Amino acid sequence: MGGNTIGKMFSVTTWGESHGKAIGAVIDGCPAGLPLSEEDLLVELSLRRPGRRFTTPRREPDVPEILSGVFNGKTTGMPISIIIRNRDVISSYYEKIKETPRPGHADLAYIKKYGYEHWDYRGGGRASGRETAARVAAGAVAKKLLGCLGVVVSGYVVELGGVEFPSAEDAEESLRSRLSPFRVLCCEEKAEEVLKEALERRDSVGGVVEAVAWNAPAGLGEPVFDKLKADLAKAMMSIPASVGFEVGWGFKLARLRGSEARDKIVSSAGEATVEGDKAGGMLGGISVGAPIRIRVAFKPTSSIMIPEKTVNIHTLEETEVEVPGRHDPAIVLRAVSVVESMFAIVLVDHAIRAGLLNPVRVEWGPHCQRVWELYADRVP
Amino acid sequence: MGGNTIGKMFSVTTWGESHGKAIGAVIDGCPAGLPLSEEDLLVELSLRRPGRRFTTPRREPDVPEILSGVFNGKTTGMPISIIIRNRDVISSYYEKIKETPRPGHADLAYIKKYGYEHWDYRGGGRASGRETAARVAAGAVAKKLLGCLGVVVSGYVVELGGVEFPSAEDAEESLRSRLSPFRVLCCEEKAEEVLKEALERRDSVGGVVEAVAWNAPAGLGEPVFDKLKADLAKAMMSIPASVGFEVGWGFKLARLRGSEARDKIVSSAGEATVEGDKAGGMLGGISVGAPIRIRVAFKPTSSIMIPEKTVNIHTLEETEVEVPGRHDPAIVLRAVSVVESMFAIVLVDHAIRAGLLNPVRVEWGPHCQRVWELYADRVP
Amino acid sequence: MGGNTIGKMFSVTTWGESHGKAIGAVIDGCPAGLPLSEEDLLVELSLRRPGRRFTTPRREPDVPEILSGVFNGKTTGMPISIIIRNRDVISSYYEKIKETPRPGHADLAYIKKYGYEHWDYRGGGRASGRETAARVAAGAVAKKLLGCLGVVVSGYVVELGGVEFPSAEDAEESLRSRLSPFRVLCCEEKAEEVLKEALERRDSVGGVVEAVAWNAPAGLGEPVFDKLKADLAKAMMSIPASVGFEVGWGFKLARLRGSEARDKIVSSAGEATVEGDKAGGMLGGISVGAPIRIRVAFKPTSSIMIPEKTVNIHTLEETEVEVPGRHDPAIVLRAVSVVESMFAIVLVDHAIRAGLLNPVRVEWGPHCQRVWELYADRVP
Amino acid sequence: MGGNTIGKMFSVTTWGESHGKAIGAVIDGCPAGLPLSEEDLLVELSLRRPGRRFTTPRREPDVPEILSGVFNGKTTGMPISIIIRNRDVISSYYEKIKETPRPGHADLAYIKKYGYEHWDYRGGGRASGRETAARVAAGAVAKKLLGCLGVVVSGYVVELGGVEFPSAEDAEESLRSRLSPFRVLCCEEKAEEVLKEALERRDSVGGVVEAVAWNAPAGLGEPVFDKLKADLAKAMMSIPASVGFEVGWGFKLARLRGSEARDKIVSSAGEATVEGDKAGGMLGGISVGAPIRIRVAFKPTSSIMIPEKTVNIHTLEETEVEVPGRHDPAIVLRAVSVVESMFAIVLVDHAIRAGLLNPVRVEWGPHCQRVWELYADRVP
Repeated sequence: MGGNTIGKMFSVTTWGESHGKAIGAVIDGCPAGLPLSEEDLLVELSLRRPGRRFTTPRREPDVPEILSGVFNGKTTGMPISIIIRNRDVISSYYEKIKETPRPGHADLAYIKKYGYEHWDYRGGGRASGRETAARVAAGAVAKKLLGCLGVVVSGYVVELGGVEFPSAEDAEESLRSRLSPFRVLCCEEKAEEVLKEALERRDSVGGVVEAVAWNAPAGLGEPVFDKLKADLAKAMMSIPASVGFEVGWGFKLARLRGSEARDKIVSSAGEATVEGDKAGGMLGGISVGAPIRIRVAFKPTSSIMIPEKTVNIHTLEETEVEVPGRHDPAIVLRAVSVVESMFAIVLVDHAIRAGLLNPVRVEWGPHCQRVWELYADRVP
Repeated sequence: MGGNTIGKMFSVTTWGESHGKAIGAVIDGCPAGLPLSEEDLLVELSLRRPGRRFTTPRREPDVPEILSGVFNGKTTGMPISIIIRNRDVISSYYEKIKETPRPGHADLAYIKKYGYEHWDYRGGGRASGRETAARVAAGAVAKKLLGCLGVVVSGYVVELGGVEFPSAEDAEESLRSRLSPFRVLCCEEKAEEVLKEALERRDSVGGVVEAVAWNAPAGLGEPVFDKLKADLAKAMMSIPASVGFEVGWGFKLARLRGSEARDKIVSSAGEATVEGDKAGGMLGGISVGAPIRIRVAFKPTSSIMIPEKTVNIHTLEETEVEVPGRHDPAIVLRAVSVVESMFAIVLVDHAIRAGLLNPVRVEWGPHCQRVWELYADRVP
Repeated sequence: MGGNTIGKMFSVTTWGESHGKAIGAVIDGCPAGLPLSEEDLLVELSLRRPGRRFTTPRREPDVPEILSGVFNGKTTGMPISIIIRNRDVISSYYEKIKETPRPGHADLAYIKKYGYEHWDYRGGGRASGRETAARVAAGAVAKKLLGCLGVVVSGYVVELGGVEFPSAEDAEESLRSRLSPFRVLCCEEKAEEVLKEALERRDSVGGVVEAVAWNAPAGLGEPVFDKLKADLAKAMMSIPASVGFEVGWGFKLARLRGSEARDKIVSSAGEATVEGDKAGGMLGGISVGAPIRIRVAFKPTSSIMIPEKTVNIHTLEETEVEVPGRHDPAIVLRAVSVVESMFAIVLVDHAIRAGLLNPVRVEWGPHCQRVWELYADRVP
Repeated sequence: MGGNTIGKMFSVTTWGESHGKAIGAVIDGCPAGLPLSEEDLLVELSLRRPGRRFTTPRREPDVPEILSGVFNGKTTGMPISIIIRNRDVISSYYEKIKETPRPGHADLAYIKKYGYEHWDYRGGGRASGRETAARVAAGAVAKKLLGCLGVVVSGYVVELGGVEFPSAEDAEESLRSRLSPFRVLCCEEKAEEVLKEALERRDSVGGVVEAVAWNAPAGLGEPVFDKLKADLAKAMMSIPASVGFEVGWGFKLARLRGSEARDKIVSSAGEATVEGDKAGGMLGGISVGAPIRIRVAFKPTSSIMIPEKTVNIHTLEETEVEVPGRHDPAIVLRAVSVVESMFAIVLVDHAIRAGLLNPVRVEWGPHCQRVWELYADRVP
């Protein structure tokens, strides 16, 4: 398994650079019987570029094509290859600055690891957020599959440029973010203001995404290293610009006393269950049947119109570098989609590992379709 | 690869339950030529139980035995099997409360996942912190190997019960925590007070551990899913009681502007390098040659002498459960050792994957020994 | 995953050298609920040393101890650690010949790969057949689990020193080999003669083992690289002294015409099925519900009392090496047990991957017990 | 890692069905710095269809396109995505026979595993030999990389329809097969006759491919399960129509005495080395620096113009099925190319695992180019 594959039973391999011919994903281990088409992917891909007014002006028409693994409209159990051609790329910018690694970006690390002569400097290469489109395409497949377990995965922004936004109490509420250009549950004017100010300052802002898996079954997670919280942490911290991860009340719990930090165990619907969300729906790293709640922090993008000090990689001469045009003041808005996708991918993998989803065939029925429509009905 | 194995080239598999006969680890992929003995493991294992006055009164004499993979005092490249016999276990406590899952513990999750009839309720079974002793034994091997790369891994408590403690500026400073019963760099009285108060209240406190890999080479991390920060996140979030993870300035970065959140790139010692630690020593998830700095948040232990509401798993009758005797007011002190171990294990795996450490043989020399002595010289 | 682990969902990691303290196995991914004790392992381990008169005089009392993963007599789903202490080892022989790598053995390869200074020359180290005892212990667990699928795995010698022995037509017949000191289905005098002659000539003989999985379900095998025949090939060719592998009619098929090489498809018991065994129970590398039949060829042991030319590894001086005492004239007899074990381990892994065995829990019932007794009832 | 990925450090994932839009491969873990273009792949792909007069009349113009992982003519260390569009497919044939699984083909197994409703019956779907084109494309990359280790991988037919053909004594000799439409080293008329006769009888023949890795370094192979011979066995037995595998003298060794079966160890060029090829260049499953020699047996294709008995999958009515047009009398000729590709892929993976090839960067120089030209100069 190379570094470009995630998942053990439901595996997703992605490929492709920002300014290469295309990007794509290969999904291995998707059970047969799932109705799947490019439309399913388009819905989720469109949410990766919410509120166009404020996100990257680069248009990136993400048009996916499914090349294998689907026959007569349904998956066959064979690997599903998805390709998204790159368009609208202007590499000349990057040609000019190729000798001056951009601070805050992966440039310097790639140069040191692979060697300057092997570094694809165009648009950030493989380190660019572009590759996340492939993750979102694969995530759409995972989301659809999870519908058969009745699980809904939904994310939203809870912090933007230091300003807080509310969390969701149920699935319906959280899905509202799909209709918001700022991926928040309310208070859009507040969000718009934060972004306007950032654009005016020619700067950018970071934020925090919260995501919840509603109606998650108990039993997901494999002790001791593949705990669900551990695999989720890895998946989220693999997203470009991620800087922190927490489950449930996260870092807050570290400041509470033991007597304050525990959820109660109560009886509900004929079985013992957890009451409260301090633990984020997991105990011992295994889901307990409560909503699984996580948060991921994203730093503000380093690509801003304010130059920063760097050096020429060859002469070591001090200089400044500015990345012209086309910048996102808040990549965290795009990240919501990626967080949801990674969440879904990890959950499907664990559902199969936990014996809750058949690895070979899925019985697609109205119960699955109902969940899928929750997403499909909520697209701007 | 089951859920009990971590690492791709330097793999560690652990086994064993809290009240079983023994716990242990099998290390597969350790290069030949590393001098290794039980003494090396004992040093690190002893730090897993710092400041005995305040940690678990259960004595747990962790005496490791190396059963394979070492010949004439050096590793042979063959799997290294380490066993630590369990002693001093009193299971009767747990017999009494086996029908009442303890809130905040993994009990309910294991019951739901594996079935009540298959649940080893004694002392938390595999979910107990006991299994981390095996991780620390394996981590000692990893730490020793890293010495040949000149890398020092060191952790310390930066937050305890909400009270802050300082970070380290260099390796020397951070290693001081090895001599502190509270694994802090200074201000021991402050720490002692926090714990005394917790014990008096029959409660517990959580905290945050910071760990740094000093002199880490550039190039560690495999895009896009096995970024170093991603594999570190997984390793840390697999530790019992972990609730959050961050790199560099972490969640703070989410509140900064792009212009404030970037480290500069400067020239130093004849090459371009990063100045500043906002990014925690990594860019694009790959190390850049700066110290790698991470933080892990731990919740306060749920095992306290204050009872909490639960239900009988069979009758669903509401009741309370109290876990008698033998509790740790601050497991975060023990966690420092585990964080260091997981850090070292991930770094060795990535060093091999990055071609910086030979997978088959290591040339042990004075330069390696010098680093190892930094640890050995600092044991209380 | 290191080179010492096999299996993706049902993983077996082995460790230990011939003259080290012990050997062992860690099974990760065994579902909870399987009744398991050391007795289960003892039965299978005893068959690894059939017909003591002719196999290695070294007594190797293989007494296994289960250290984890079992509680109240049943597996818990946690990793199962098995240890077998080494006894009866005399290393002095190997001390004398440590500078003269034994022809036909792994000595020279290990010296070149790991370096002479890191080579554990005692009794073949990790390359010795000794490590297969750990495989057989793990294989016993796999065999027991397979009982719940109604699958019986059974092997026997079909060729010994060039002399042919019959195959089995059904499970009952094949299980007879368990009672034969030569692991054949009949004609023991013929087998005895072959071995007597080999002993007289102070030489050794090779042979071919055939193994069948009776009542195997359809659907085992994951295209395109993890076909069942591919994973079986790997498992078998990892056994010491293995030199060839074939499925169904194997190499014979290469000499037939297409019209002669195909099995018919017929209707049986209300479904389409394969009639004939040319394909060994698999099509496209996936099992079809017919018995899965494979063959593994073993070379004669290189440890014989006839010296062979070698050189001193340091001086390069030509010399001869003779390995004194304690030799097996036909390791293929021991190999039957190992072949069965590897077969069972691969089948369980694939059964879980194919959704035919729950990865988390097994319902042990009379139907499982009935199969297990087929083995238990047939021990000499 | 799904069943469609092979390799641990140098991983190849393939996708695509016979009559789908395209097939392809993603290579993850190829070091940066390897000059690579579509031409490199074309050379090897053309050899997958030797002697067109006798192989499948379906033209299958395998035109590969590299979509990622290459910049300025060299690999960047990022995943390499290769796509080969399918053309010239006529699915109507298969429409007619979709209810009657073809004997000897994977049809019945896929139907049982995935369900009839999910089975892509067109042209054999994923089970078709078509997917091997993706393996050959990836194998070309591996072959090129191996050149930097001075290793040449070359295969040829040694048995065709029961008629024997000679082996090669050196690299030069074995490479001759590239220029032969029958992939033999001599005696083409003999081969032609075998095929003519098969065509006349409307039948097919099987055969055996021998492949050698010339100048292979010592130290390849990871005990005890990932021995080189074990990973080679898996790779070869994953090839469609494979039925047997052996190393060195293979099954013949099983009939020799120990004293006859060992290779000598001698001094050569200042070091101890193996003399003879009985062991196929490996001891204990690890390469010793001698040529690595293996053989793979292929059954005759089941697609012939002679009908065979089958049943209707729904009615279970007995019938016959005939696959019209477009058949290969000897797929073994095409298989040579696939065997070489799988060989190269496994060797690169093991070279990296053994520390003999840097996982991150390769220094491409004249020594590498020289080996690559051995292939490029020998294309019909």
